[in-house]
Amino acid sequence: MAELMNRQIVLRRRPTGLVQPADTELITAPAPEPAEGEALVRTTYVGIDAAARTWLNDQPGYLPPVQLGEVIRAAGIGEVVASRCDAYAVGDVVTTLTGFQEYVISRDDIFTTPVPGPDVDQLAVMSVYGPTGATAYFGMVGIGRPQPGETVVVSAAAGATGSVAGQIAKIAGARVVGIAGGPDKCRAVVEDFGFDACIDYREANLHAALKEHCPKGVDVYFDNVGGPILDAVLGRLAHKARVVLCGVISSYLTGEHPGPANYVNLLSKTALMQGFNALDEWGRFEEAFGPLRRWADEGRLVHRQTIFEGIESCVDAMNGLFTGANIGKMLVKISEPGGKKIPS
Amino acid sequence: MAELMNRQIVLRRRPTGLVQPADTELITAPAPEPAEGEALVRTTYVGIDAAARTWLNDQPGYLPPVQLGEVIRAAGIGEVVASRCDAYAVGDVVTTLTGFQEYVISRDDIFTTPVPGPDVDQLAVMSVYGPTGATAYFGMVGIGRPQPGETVVVSAAAGATGSVAGQIAKIAGARVVGIAGGPDKCRAVVEDFGFDACIDYREANLHAALKEHCPKGVDVYFDNVGGPILDAVLGRLAHKARVVLCGVISSYLTGEHPGPANYVNLLSKTALMQGFNALDEWGRFEEAFGPLRRWADEGRLVHRQTIFEGIESCVDAMNGLFTGANIGKMLVKISEPGGKKIPS
Repeated sequence: MAELMNRQIVLRRRPTGLVQPADTELITAPAPEPAEGEALVRTTYVGIDAAARTWLNDQPGYLPPVQLGEVIRAAGIGEVVASRCDAYAVGDVVTTLTGFQEYVISRDDIFTTPVPGPDVDQLAVMSVYGPTGATAYFGMVGIGRPQPGETVVVSAAAGATGSVAGQIAKIAGARVVGIAGGPDKCRAVVEDFGFDACIDYREANLHAALKEHCPKGVDVYFDNVGGPILDAVLGRLAHKARVVLCGVISSYLTGEHPGPANYVNLLSKTALMQGFNALDEWGRFEEAFGPLRRWADEGRLVHRQTIFEGIESCVDAMNGLFTGANIGKMLVKISEPGGKKIPS
Repeated sequence: MAELMNRQIVLRRRPTGLVQPADTELITAPAPEPAEGEALVRTTYVGIDAAARTWLNDQPGYLPPVQLGEVIRAAGIGEVVASRCDAYAVGDVVTTLTGFQEYVISRDDIFTTPVPGPDVDQLAVMSVYGPTGATAYFGMVGIGRPQPGETVVVSAAAGATGSVAGQIAKIAGARVVGIAGGPDKCRAVVEDFGFDACIDYREANLHAALKEHCPKGVDVYFDNVGGPILDAVLGRLAHKARVVLCGVISSYLTGEHPGPANYVNLLSKTALMQGFNALDEWGRFEEAFGPLRRWADEGRLVHRQTIFEGIESCVDAMNGLFTGANIGKMLVKISEPGGKKIPS
C-alpha cells in the first residue's frame, strides 16, 4: 500500500494577536506507525477552543506552551484506524488531543477517552459529552450552584461553553441572562438556547442593561471573557453571589489582564469568585455526562456548531473565535466520520 | 444626683483621606434615659476598626453611612449602669455598637452581646472573643481551611485580625508568613505572634520576598489590605489556593480599588477568592469562641493591644490605623473597667 501521509499545521513563530500566515505552516509527513500499546487515530473534527490560542504564547499554564516546530495542540475527536493496544479497536471513536493534523498516535492516557458506540454523534460529543460539556457542567453545577428564582448571567453566551452553561442554569430553575456580541448571536442565545434575555455588549450600555435585566443583582456569573465585562458584572453582584471563572478570552490575544476594580464587591457582598479547569475533574466526567445526556434526550439541552471545512482552515477557525465568527461549538472537519478502515 | 453627661464625637463633615479636626466635633449632651426594655451602658473601650472609617463615606455598605450630626459608629465594650430590661443587670459587661461616646443605650438586639462573668478580661473580649476573633476564625477556618504543611500568607499581620488569623493557621499546622509595615511590626509578628516569617513590605521587593518565603506558592492568603499587595500574592498562588478577602484597607481612605490584574491566576491555578463579613455569622459566634478560648488557655493564642486614652483621642486612633500606629487591636479607653454603679 501507499504510505499514509499526515498533513499537519506546525508553529513557526509565536503570534501576537491574531495568528498570521507566517506564524504557522501546513506540512506533510508520513503518518506515524503505532508502537506496541498505541493506536493510530484519524482525526474527524478538531475543536477550536480559546485555550488553544494561549498555548501558542511562551507562558507557563496548566499545559506547557507549544514549541516552535510542533503541531498546534487542540482537543479533537477521531476514529481508530490501526491499533496495537488492548484499549482500542479499529473503528472505535475516541476524543483526544488530536492537534491540527490528520492522524495522531493515541495511548490509553489521561487525555484520551473512548466514546461508546460506533454510531455516536460526534458533533454532540464535541459539544456536550466531552470537555466542553464537562466544563459547563462542573462550572455551573459545582461552583455556580444556581437555585430556582436566582439570576444567572453568562458571558460568551452563544459560544460552546456558555450556551451549555446557561441551559444548565435554566434547567435548575434560574432566570438566565446572556451577554454576547451582535444581534445574530443574541437571537440564537434566546431563540435556540432558551435564555430569558441576551445583552448585546457591542450595542448596549452594559451597566444600564445589567441593571435592567438583573434588578435584584446577579447571583451567579459564569465568566468566559474577563476584562470590562467581568468588571461590570462584579459591580452588580447580589449578596452571596458566585462568580465562576471559566475563561479570559478578552485577554488571550494580548496577554494583558486588566484587573477588575469591582472585585471589592466580593467583600461587601460576601461573594465568591472561583477559577476552575475541567481537566481537574477528568476522572469525574461521567458524573456530568449522565445528566447532560438525559437533558439532551428530553429535549431540554440543545447544541449547535459552527463548522469550518478542511485542515487548511484551522487557523482561520482559531482566529474566528476571537473575531466572533461562531455560534455554538467551533469545529474544523478534518475527515468524514464513519470512514473506512485502512486496508491492510 | 447631678445629671449624667455624655461626651460624644459626632460627624460634621465627610472626611477625605485622614479625618481632619473640622470633620468631627466633641460635644456634651445629657446621657439618655433608658426606656422600658433598654439599658444604659457606660463605654469602657471603643474598638477602632478600618470598617468604621468606611462608614464615614457616603457610600452604601453592609451598614448605612453615618449621617452628619450623628455619633461616629464603632464597636465597643462597656458596663451596664442602669437597666430597665430583663436581658441585662447593672454590672453586666456587654459588647455593642457603642460609637465614639461615653454612654450608649443598649437593647437585646443583634449587635449587643452580654459577656459572661463580672471579672471578664475586656481586652481579651475586644481582641479575641468578639467580632475581631470571630472574623479571624471564620475567615481562616471557614474559607482558608489551612492544612498541615501548607503555606499561608497574612497581610496586616501585626493587626488585630491578621495576628489572630495567622496564629489560627499555625495551630492548624501550616507554615505562616506575615506581611507588615516596618521592623517593629515584623518583629512582633514573628516573636509575639509566632509566625514563621514576616515580610516588611516597605523595605522588601514584595515579589522576590514572596518567592523566597513561599517557594511552593501560596495555598491560603488572608487579605486585609487589597491593592498591590493582593496583586502580588495572587501572582504566587499555588494550585487550588484559597484567598480570603477580609478587608481593603489600602483603599478605605481614597475609595479607590485598583483591580488586581493577577486575578487571572484564580483561573490557571483553579483557585478561589471569597469575601466574607463576620456579621453574617453572628448567630454562630460561639462556634468560634470555644476553640479560641481553648487555644488562649493553652497559651497557643496570644493577643496584644495598642490603647489610646480618652474619648478625645478616638479620631487620632482611627487615623493611626491607616498610618500604621498599632500592633494588635487598636482600642481607645473611654472609662475604667470595673467601675462603680451609678448611685441611685
